Amino acid sequence: MNCPGYKKLSERSREVHLVRSTASLLEWDLETYIPPNAAAFRAEQLSYLGTKAHALFTKPIVGHWIKEAEDFGFPAESLEAANVREWRRTYDRAVKIPNSLVEKFEKARILAYDAWIGARAESNFPKFRPHLEKIITLVRKKIDRWGFEESPYDALLEDYEPGIRASQLKPVFAELRDALKDILAKASASGVSEEFLDGHYPISGQQALSKEIAEAFGYDFRSGRIDTTTHPFMTTLGPYDQRITTRYNEKRFEMSLYGTMHETGHALYEQGLPKEPVGVPTSDSVSLGIHESQSRLWENHVGRTTQFWHLWHATACNYLPDLARYSPDDLARGVQRVAPSFIRVEADEVTYDLHVLLRFEIELELIEGRLKVKDLPEAWNSKFKELFDLKVPDDRRGVLQDVHWSHGTFGYSPTYTLGNLNAAQLINAAETQVPDLGAQLARGRYQPLLQWLREKVHQHGRHYLPQDLMCRATGETTQGKYRIEYLRQKYAT
Amino acid sequence: MNCPGYKKLSERSREVHLVRSTASLLEWDLETYIPPNAAAFRAEQLSYLGTKAHALFTKPIVGHWIKEAEDFGFPAESLEAANVREWRRTYDRAVKIPNSLVEKFEKARILAYDAWIGARAESNFPKFRPHLEKIITLVRKKIDRWGFEESPYDALLEDYEPGIRASQLKPVFAELRDALKDILAKASASGVSEEFLDGHYPISGQQALSKEIAEAFGYDFRSGRIDTTTHPFMTTLGPYDQRITTRYNEKRFEMSLYGTMHETGHALYEQGLPKEPVGVPTSDSVSLGIHESQSRLWENHVGRTTQFWHLWHATACNYLPDLARYSPDDLARGVQRVAPSFIRVEADEVTYDLHVLLRFEIELELIEGRLKVKDLPEAWNSKFKELFDLKVPDDRRGVLQDVHWSHGTFGYSPTYTLGNLNAAQLINAAETQVPDLGAQLARGRYQPLLQWLREKVHQHGRHYLPQDLMCRATGETTQGKYRIEYLRQKYAT
Repeated sequence: MNCPGYKKLSERSREVHLVRSTASLLEWDLETYIPPNAAAFRAEQLSYLGTKAHALFTKPIVGHWIKEAEDFGFPAESLEAANVREWRRTYDRAVKIPNSLVEKFEKARILAYDAWIGARAESNFPKFRPHLEKIITLVRKKIDRWGFEESPYDALLEDYEPGIRASQLKPVFAELRDALKDILAKASASGVSEEFLDGHYPISGQQALSKEIAEAFGYDFRSGRIDTTTHPFMTTLGPYDQRITTRYNEKRFEMSLYGTMHETGHALYEQGLPKEPVGVPTSDSVSLGIHESQSRLWENHVGRTTQFWHLWHATACNYLPDLARYSPDDLARGVQRVAPSFIRVEADEVTYDLHVLLRFEIELELIEGRLKVKDLPEAWNSKFKELFDLKVPDDRRGVLQDVHWSHGTFGYSPTYTLGNLNAAQLINAAETQVPDLGAQLARGRYQPLLQWLREKVHQHGRHYLPQDLMCRATGETTQGKYRIEYLRQKYAT
Repeated sequence: MNCPGYKKLSERSREVHLVRSTASLLEWDLETYIPPNAAAFRAEQLSYLGTKAHALFTKPIVGHWIKEAEDFGFPAESLEAANVREWRRTYDRAVKIPNSLVEKFEKARILAYDAWIGARAESNFPKFRPHLEKIITLVRKKIDRWGFEESPYDALLEDYEPGIRASQLKPVFAELRDALKDILAKASASGVSEEFLDGHYPISGQQALSKEIAEAFGYDFRSGRIDTTTHPFMTTLGPYDQRITTRYNEKRFEMSLYGTMHETGHALYEQGLPKEPVGVPTSDSVSLGIHESQSRLWENHVGRTTQFWHLWHATACNYLPDLARYSPDDLARGVQRVAPSFIRVEADEVTYDLHVLLRFEIELELIEGRLKVKDLPEAWNSKFKELFDLKVPDDRRGVLQDVHWSHGTFGYSPTYTLGNLNAAQLINAAETQVPDLGAQLARGRYQPLLQWLREKVHQHGRHYLPQDLMCRATGETTQGKYRIEYLRQKYAT
C-alpha cells in the first residue's frame, strides 16, 4: 500500500530516532564515564539534541502527513494503522503545548530540582513548597491544553500508560490495598534480620555472577553490556544496543544481583522489540506498566524464589565464597525478607505497592485540587501511618524522598504497581500456556518463558494499547487478584 | 564591535561544535565500549550527524555572513579577523566541492578501505590498485575545484597544515634526509636487542604508572580519562573533556607508557586551548604539525630520556616490580633503541622520519602525475632500499602497510615530520627562555615547560597560521637543524 504521507512519517520517525538515540548515548556517558568538569557542556549538547528532536516531529508538515495517512485508511488491525494512531496521539499532545509553556516548565523544573536537593538534605519542606506549587500550576495549564474526559489526572497518565484512566485504576488499587495490609500483617512476623545475609562479597565476584545470570535469562551481550552507576538503569542506544547499569555494595550482594535481574528484564523486552522499521511506534515499547512488568517478572517471579537459589547456589558460592555459610533456603529467606520501612526504593515485594498507592492517592488529590501543597506533609504522614502503622520521623524520609515531583512528573508512580500486577498476571498466563513452565524454570531453562514473552508481549511493540495487549496475552485487562494470590502464597502461608 | 554577521557566525560555529563533539562521543564509544552488534546503527548515527554539521556551515547564508564580517573590517591582528579568515578558508573549501563529488568520494573510500583490508592481509597490491587509481582520480578532481598556485599537492596540505607549501617542505626535508642517514649509521651500531626490556608487566601496574606520569606532566583528569582501544588516540568531546586511549602489552610496558605520554601531549594542547567562545576557530587547534609537536615533545624530549628514568625509576619499579632488574641507564638505553624496520608505527626516533619522507616523496609524485599507481610497489621498494638499505619482503610490510590512502588521505603524512621538527625547535626555544629548564625537568617540575607551551602555543588556538605561530614562539619558521642537532646529540655521539 503506497501512501506518501505514511512513507514520510516513517522516514521522519527514523530521523527522530537517530537524534534521540544519540542523546541517549550522551546521557549514558554522563552517568558512566564522563569526567567531572565535562558535565556542563554535556547539558548543552543534550538540550540542543532534545530541541532538534522535538522540532523535527512538531513541524506543521508532520500534521499534514498524519492527516494524509489517516485519510488513506489503513485496515484497522494493521501495523500501519497502529503507527498512524500513535503518531496522531504524540503529535497532538506535543503541538497542543505552546513553546512558551514548554520553556516556563523547563525553567520551573530546573529550579524545583535544585530546591528539592537542598530541601531533602535539610528535611525542610517549606523550602520546596513554592516550587512544587509553581510546578502544579504549570502541570494544570498543560492539562487544560490537552483536555480530559473524566479526571484531569487521566491527561497525565497518557504519557506513561496510553489509554488508561484513573477510574480504572481505583477499584483495582483498592482491592490490592486491603489485601496487602492483610498479607503484610502475616508476612512481617516471620522475618529474618536486615543484616541476615551481610558478608564480604568482592565486586569482581558479584559482576561475574550477575553476568552469568543475565546471560542465562537470555540477555544478549553482543547487543549490550553492564556498567556501574549511582542509579541503575537500562537504556537503548540503537536496535542492537541495550545497556544495563548497576551498583555494588561489597557487604550486600543483593543490591547488584537483583538490580541486574531487574534491568535485565527491561533489556530483554527491548531486545525482543521489532528491529525494523527503526524508530516507528510499533518498534517501540508500549508503556511503563508493561515495561515494568518485564523487569519485575524476572527479578521477583523468577529470581526472588526458593527454586532459584536451589539452582544457583553452587555457582553463586563459587563466585562469592562467603555465601557458602547459607543454605539455598536461607538465601531465599534472606532475599524474601518483608519489613515495613520509610523509603520506597528500599521496599520489599509486599510493601512496595503500599508506597505506590500512597503516591497515587496523593497525586490524584493534588491534581484534582482536593489537596493543597501546604497540607502535603500532613497528608503524607497520616496516610503513611494508616498504611504502614509507622510514624514518619521527618520529611526527608517522607514526602521529600522521591525526585519525581521536582522533575514535574505526575502520573508516573502508578505504573510501578501496574507493572507488578501485569507481571503476576502474565506469569500466571504463561503457567497455563507453557508446558511444564515451573519445572523448566527450576532447571534453569529460561528460554520457554522468554519465548512466550517474546510472542505475547515483546514482538508487538506498540501495535496494541497496553490494556489490549494484556487482554490478548492473558484474556483480561490488568487485575489485582493474580498479584494478591502470588503474594499470599509466597508470603502469607 | 558590533557586526551582526560575525555574531551569527559565532553562534553557528557553536552549533556546529555541539554536533561535531556529539559525533566525537559516538566515535569514542565505538572504539571503547560499544557492543559488537551495535556498530552498524552507529555508522548511521555518525553519517547523520556528519551530514548535518556539513550542511550547517555550507548554507549560502553562511557565505553572506562571512562577506559581511569581511566588509566590517576587523583590525588585522584581532581574534575576530583570524576567525573571519578561517571561516572564509573552510567555507570556500567546502562549497567548492559539489555534493555529487562528495558522495562519489565517500563511496570510493568505503570500497577502497574494504579492498585495502583484504589486499594487505594477502599482501596483494593488484587487488587494491584499481581502488587507489579511482581515489587519486577523485582527489585530482577535488584539487581542480580548490585550485593551487605551485603544486597540486599544496591544495591537499591545506587541510592539515594551513598555509604551508610543498616547496617549503622540500629543502627542509632534504636536509633532514641526509642527516638522518648519517645519524642512523652511527646509532644503530650501539644498540640493544629488541627483547632487552621484555618482562612481565601486569596491566594494572602499567595503568597506575601511566596515570601518575600523565598527571605529573599536567594532564587534568577532572577533564579527561584513559581507556583502552586497539588504536590509541586522543579526542576532545567538549571544552573540558579531553580523553586519551591506550593499549597494553603485558610483555612490553613501553607500548602503553610511551603511547600515553604521546596522547597526553595532544591532550595538554587541547586542555590549554581557549575555552570561550566555544566552537570558533581561535578556540581550536591550529594544525596537525603543531598538534604532533606537542605529543612528540612530551613523549620523546621529556619522556624518552636518561634523566626521565633517573627520576621515575623508583616509582616505576614500585608499580612494575620486574623493572627492578634494570638500572635507570638500562631503561633509557632500552627505550632509545635504534634499528631500521619495515613498519612506520613501530619505528624509533631516528628512522621514523625516514618512513615519513618516503611517503611524502611518493605522494608528491603520485599527485603531480609523475608516478603511476601501477608502478607504486616498485617505487616504494626502491626508495626503501635507498633510505634504509633493506629489501622490502612483501607489500604487506611495504606499500600496503598504512591505512591513509585507502581513506583518500593525501598530504597528511608530512605533518608527522613537521611535528618532530617543531617539537625540537620549540624545546630548543624553551631552553633559552625558561630559566633552568633542564634542571627543572630533571627534578620532575614539568609546570614551567607546560606554562611556556601554554603561553607560546596553546592559548593562541588558531589565531595565527602555523608558521606564523612558530616564528612568534621560536623566531623562525620550521627548520631541520634543531631536530638534526637533537638526534645527533642523543643518538650519534
